[in-house]
Amino acid sequence: MDQNGAESRIRESFGRQALMRTLGARLSRVADGEVEITLAASPHITQQHGFVHAGALAAIADSACGYACLSRMPEDSGVLSVEFKINLLAPAAGREFVAKARVVRAGRTISVASADVHAIDERGASKCVAVMQATMMRVEASPDIRA
Amino acid sequence: MDQNGAESRIRESFGRQALMRTLGARLSRVADGEVEITLAASPHITQQHGFVHAGALAAIADSACGYACLSRMPEDSGVLSVEFKINLLAPAAGREFVAKARVVRAGRTISVASADVHAIDERGASKCVAVMQATMMRVEASPDIRA
Amino acid sequence: MDQNGAESRIRESFGRQALMRTLGARLSRVADGEVEITLAASPHITQQHGFVHAGALAAIADSACGYACLSRMPEDSGVLSVEFKINLLAPAAGREFVAKARVVRAGRTISVASADVHAIDERGASKCVAVMQATMMRVEASPDIRA
Amino acid sequence: MDQNGAESRIRESFGRQALMRTLGARLSRVADGEVEITLAASPHITQQHGFVHAGALAAIADSACGYACLSRMPEDSGVLSVEFKINLLAPAAGREFVAKARVVRAGRTISVASADVHAIDERGASKCVAVMQATMMRVEASPDIRA
Repeated sequence: MDQNGAESRIRESFGRQALMRTLGARLSRVADGEVEITLAASPHITQQHGFVHAGALAAIADSACGYACLSRMPEDSGVLSVEFKINLLAPAAGREFVAKARVVRAGRTISVASADVHAIDERGASKCVAVMQATMMRVEASPDIRA
Repeated sequence: MDQNGAESRIRESFGRQALMRTLGARLSRVADGEVEITLAASPHITQQHGFVHAGALAAIADSACGYACLSRMPEDSGVLSVEFKINLLAPAAGREFVAKARVVRAGRTISVASADVHAIDERGASKCVAVMQATMMRVEASPDIRA
Repeated sequence: MDQNGAESRIRESFGRQALMRTLGARLSRVADGEVEITLAASPHITQQHGFVHAGALAAIADSACGYACLSRMPEDSGVLSVEFKINLLAPAAGREFVAKARVVRAGRTISVASADVHAIDERGASKCVAVMQATMMRVEASPDIRA
Repeated sequence: MDQNGAESRIRESFGRQALMRTLGARLSRVADGEVEITLAASPHITQQHGFVHAGALAAIADSACGYACLSRMPEDSGVLSVEFKINLLAPAAGREFVAKARVVRAGRTISVASADVHAIDERGASKCVAVMQATMMRVEASPDIRA
């Protein structure tokens, strides 16, 4: 990718994802075909047993997959999620959660990415708690994307 | 289901899902094998184009699927998401979003549910914007579920 | 749909799916947005326990989803599977298996369908043994589709 | 795993999967947590454009995922597919197709595996044409598994 161009477009787009701020997620790495989003554990994003809710993990993994695909798209592109599937492997316990996404196939219209979500505990140990496989679609990045 | 018993257990569990409060979601219907969760559109849950983020829709659909399955489980049960898959059909524009989940198969250990997410616009018109297919697992509802 | 035009295109395309003949599947119903494929139980399509293999059920459900979408596409269209997800609900025991697919959303490029697979036993009783959610893509139906 | 014990159980089980013989698939590698199944391209397993049908790729990837999980299970175990999701990345053209599955998480009841399917062309070049994420369940390997 045009590393600087793509990275700044991704950072700018991430900055407009209000849900990421609401959850407490930050864009922790952008590279060619790879994006990481880190979510701090917090009481406001839990499910009924006190673990982080699967929906919060899905949200950061979905965004990471989308931006991993966007990093391989032409400059005038936007990205929309067509679908994603996530397996929850273990309770989401830890200090923070890192969704690491990578492009599996970059197509003209349809791209595919996969992501692992790792829980990092207090001592820095890492454990994979979720895996995602996602399909993304390139759209023209117009100011009138709603239409 | 023991309608009253199951409903009160589900409402109590939902009340402990802090993420639902954070997103602005409420449990709008509980019946035998069917659960609805309603999410108000709000600027704090959007993605980069101003629509509601797919992760927020996934979160309410996942919770609705889990509770639809829980409504068919024995009294001493808890429910965990094994995996889910969601297709995004249209941009999530509207006044509110209703995830309607129903049990497809209630098994002893594994249950399957599906959900539609409908966007309701200002005039009350409804449009399906997402569909989910989810796998849930029954666990013993112990105070020590982390172990 | 142009019922006759779409049905004849679907029947002609199905006739070229050699895998359907190999499995023993037939196109049992074509309607606007709905397609059924029926698979006879047979020893040559089993898994290790003597039930019909999940891969055989997936194959007929995938084809049924694709043709359900194709029934809503313009005349010059072909259809390719982008992805599908199938839940196996019960062992595939029975006399025959009917995959019933319906369009969930018909888009210009991307369409979504879902399917149920029902097992029919010797007395004609029906049981849902699998559910699929699939994403399909429209392609130009050219003679040179490989390119 | 007890390499010899697990491998012989997997080979014996694969030998009872009649669908694999019908498709023309062979068990090409068994290791601890990893299984490969190879499918020869053939006119009897094609879809309407002459490529190998997505259902045939799904069948070998599903079996490979199941056996990868089985390689990590206790001796008295059988394995059933709970669900799988497959993305088709490119038309399945080639001389043969290799589904390479690996365990992502080996649980007591539920295991998760992922698989890549590579197309090998006439010159031996390899291309990834599909990726799968699958959920498997351990069952007691009894003679009465139907009950």
